[in-house]
Amino acid sequence: MKIRIGIVGYGNLGRGSEYAISQNPDMELSYIFTRRDPSSISPISPGVKVVSVDEALKLVDEIDVMLLCGGSATDLPEQTPYFAKYFNVVDSFDTHANIPEHYQKVDAVAKSSGKTAIISIGWDPGLFSMNRMIAEAILPNGSSYTFWGKGVSQGHSDAVRRIEGVLDARQYTIPIESALEAVRSGLTPELETREKHKRECFVVAKDGADLAEIERQIVTMPNYFDEYDTTVHFISAEELAANHAGLPHGGFVIRDGKTGNNDENSQIIEYALKLDSNPEFTSSILTVYARAAYRLNTEGVIGCKTILDIPPSYLSPDSATELIGKYL
Amino acid sequence: MKIRIGIVGYGNLGRGSEYAISQNPDMELSYIFTRRDPSSISPISPGVKVVSVDEALKLVDEIDVMLLCGGSATDLPEQTPYFAKYFNVVDSFDTHANIPEHYQKVDAVAKSSGKTAIISIGWDPGLFSMNRMIAEAILPNGSSYTFWGKGVSQGHSDAVRRIEGVLDARQYTIPIESALEAVRSGLTPELETREKHKRECFVVAKDGADLAEIERQIVTMPNYFDEYDTTVHFISAEELAANHAGLPHGGFVIRDGKTGNNDENSQIIEYALKLDSNPEFTSSILTVYARAAYRLNTEGVIGCKTILDIPPSYLSPDSATELIGKYL
Repeated sequence: MKIRIGIVGYGNLGRGSEYAISQNPDMELSYIFTRRDPSSISPISPGVKVVSVDEALKLVDEIDVMLLCGGSATDLPEQTPYFAKYFNVVDSFDTHANIPEHYQKVDAVAKSSGKTAIISIGWDPGLFSMNRMIAEAILPNGSSYTFWGKGVSQGHSDAVRRIEGVLDARQYTIPIESALEAVRSGLTPELETREKHKRECFVVAKDGADLAEIERQIVTMPNYFDEYDTTVHFISAEELAANHAGLPHGGFVIRDGKTGNNDENSQIIEYALKLDSNPEFTSSILTVYARAAYRLNTEGVIGCKTILDIPPSYLSPDSATELIGKYL
Repeated sequence: MKIRIGIVGYGNLGRGSEYAISQNPDMELSYIFTRRDPSSISPISPGVKVVSVDEALKLVDEIDVMLLCGGSATDLPEQTPYFAKYFNVVDSFDTHANIPEHYQKVDAVAKSSGKTAIISIGWDPGLFSMNRMIAEAILPNGSSYTFWGKGVSQGHSDAVRRIEGVLDARQYTIPIESALEAVRSGLTPELETREKHKRECFVVAKDGADLAEIERQIVTMPNYFDEYDTTVHFISAEELAANHAGLPHGGFVIRDGKTGNNDENSQIIEYALKLDSNPEFTSSILTVYARAAYRLNTEGVIGCKTILDIPPSYLSPDSATELIGKYL
């Protein structure tokens, strides 16, 4: 009996989840739910039904876990509490400041419905959160650093696209290598925003646009660019399509903890990601946490959970005995 | 009310645990148990009692968790099942091949005594096991690599010391940088033993010893050195003491998983340690798993557990609400 998964929303995350489910033999993708016309969607997996999101409640007996693949700005604040009334759910809610409120809402619903909800799954929040937490627990006396990139920031790309005269744009966040090396070497440097990351923009401008003015607006944009050293390149639409179509990303979580009778020893834990496809990686994480949600619910563990609450073994299809033999 | 810890064995791991406990304000070191003459041990922490290991059973009401800091060869196979009859315990049993058997023994005892035992805690087995397991669950389609070092291997140093004419020795295991880079770049290379690590030995020889013969015996030693490229340096006892007294170590666990409709995207997860003191780092891990053992037992979760069974949040002194605010 496979774990029957439903996907709500068929954008980058939904498609990535479809690929990820196909790599996990104990799961099957049963339904894709969409707000678009279902006939406009052609899933790659054979036998998957595409239906309107309004049909979901009729299918409570056919789905074990719903992967909520909408956006954090407007979709998930509504969808996760809504679906947690009827289904075990996993979401990737990533508006850091609102996670406590989201947690409370989803927890109340899931506790009264007897469902299991795992929220804010992905890599940041997600695997990075878990690694920061574990490293700081093990090494309480020390400094933590997070670097992001090299990768495409969708929020920053969107901000550039909103500038008058810009047709399209792609923004890369790039960690500054010398800062990374200083951290890795145990120097525990104090780093300003500008010293940790730089930004690089590839911009397609309208014919006749004022390029100098576009560049000025980018590099001085408050919150997004003004605290960073930013390089702007104007390129053609063809070059953007050819060289900047992907969504790579990644980053580094580094803990430098001091141990010993006089804190004389540096112990450095580094967790690093280098991703060709940010959404597909996030989807792969959502998918294994669907397995955890299903198992927890089977055991009667209900309510809202985060990545910090889930034992590692719940992510694997292997039995406890197999895991000991394979990994310890 | 602090978690009251007992340490069994006051070698490198025991001393490291003493330092680690002092960094965790919700814990206190109550007793150190030793097979040596207790008066020969001077703990650095004020108020800690040092007593004979034979006194332990009289103190069941004064200790919440025992950290078993003995060796895996002969101490822990006896000590862990023995102490799990009376105490919650954490050990660092690291003889990989015997972990399933050790687990079964300890589990049977702890289940009947109502205690919680967490075994094979450290970084390999331990954090490396957990990272391999999680990365392979998230990226089931891919290749895993582990590199160790640069660091002192005690087993290899001991093997060199047993050679006729050798007074003292220190052996470093060193990952080969070009292999690491090939893995990180997503090439998924097939690597032979010799291509992953090299070995470097610093040897203090007896006056008049046959250095060429010592070197020959080292580089050809079966299992230990014959499959590696090994460099041997003869140095003075003073130089060994000055430059090779520490026990640094570290390593890298790398998963390269492929995702996408045609496996076209490489997703690379790397977990890396760079440790000035291998035993102090292991002790720091043991110490936070003592917190987990205590909490699990308080909740009625008994029997033998491994690092794969423990939710990350159980390692932290912070509440669930604090953890969400701080890390997600």
